[in-house]
Amino acid sequence: MEPKWRTLSSQTRLKDRWIDVRADRCETPSGVEVNPYYVLSYVDWVHVVALTPEQELVLIRQYRHAAGDWFLEIPGGGVDARDGDIEQAARRELAEETGYTSERWQHVTTLYPNPATHTNRVHTYLAMHAVATLERRLDPGEEGLGTLVMPFDYILNQLAAGILGQAMHVASVTLAARVLARL
Amino acid sequence: MEPKWRTLSSQTRLKDRWIDVRADRCETPSGVEVNPYYVLSYVDWVHVVALTPEQELVLIRQYRHAAGDWFLEIPGGGVDARDGDIEQAARRELAEETGYTSERWQHVTTLYPNPATHTNRVHTYLAMHAVATLERRLDPGEEGLGTLVMPFDYILNQLAAGILGQAMHVASVTLAARVLARL
Repeated sequence: MEPKWRTLSSQTRLKDRWIDVRADRCETPSGVEVNPYYVLSYVDWVHVVALTPEQELVLIRQYRHAAGDWFLEIPGGGVDARDGDIEQAARRELAEETGYTSERWQHVTTLYPNPATHTNRVHTYLAMHAVATLERRLDPGEEGLGTLVMPFDYILNQLAAGILGQAMHVASVTLAARVLARL
Repeated sequence: MEPKWRTLSSQTRLKDRWIDVRADRCETPSGVEVNPYYVLSYVDWVHVVALTPEQELVLIRQYRHAAGDWFLEIPGGGVDARDGDIEQAARRELAEETGYTSERWQHVTTLYPNPATHTNRVHTYLAMHAVATLERRLDPGEEGLGTLVMPFDYILNQLAAGILGQAMHVASVTLAARVLARL
């Protein structure tokens, strides 16, 4: 067990429904003080790599304000108090954002979005034989969100070109592809 | 060109050397107000997938305080005003953090860490025939940072098991592997 940093004190700097930033005063094992060290607290996230029976990937197209542009993304979101477990959160996000459902779910991986700054983890699920069965239920501000399907092989071949702009989504999609190759 | 959100007003909420959070009041194309929308501004980041002549991946082991644990990571960091261009930032980070250098660099991909919340992009470079030639130059608080090499194939096979805990690093490593397979 390697020694960890000690948190000498901690202060909330910005907090509401959408953000939670604290500033910690830390000491490394060799006694160096690191102050302030900002930590962003989030609930865990889920990503869903959903494939239709025709091996198409279920995608959404969404405006992302920090980058100021539209992005092709895989469905996902935050684990919610309503969710009995993490897989349930993945099922709920897929259904709400796309109307697709699946009876064949598999956990792919659990990673950290950014362990330097974010407290949370991101859990990736593979949903096979996904079919459009429900009406979508979008949150306010998501009214321009479009659902589409594209051939999974095409997406994989265009990842380095940036077809999915979000790096964490690329991790989820490539690891799902590796898991699928072994199924 | 699809319509973008309008920023009606913007206010800095928390800013110093390590963090920059603003709260925007936005309006979607259909007139829905989104307020507040928090945006985290960062400089662009670089990731380096450096392979030795023996096809080993150059890694660092680093304590990450938000997650409160140690992580195996690929070298990387922020693009700096000193850097003439982005590839230079990648060369500098590899050398400073690991002491490895390379004469064979290739751009792999440019993605967004999180376009919903972060303004910046992350640029991934592949460094081939990397060799240990320099003394490392670590920043304060990085004194426990270890450099190691591990077989690239082993790392690829253990990604879903979480050997590299950070999702963005997984994206960079898997896309570098796809680019390499085509070289």
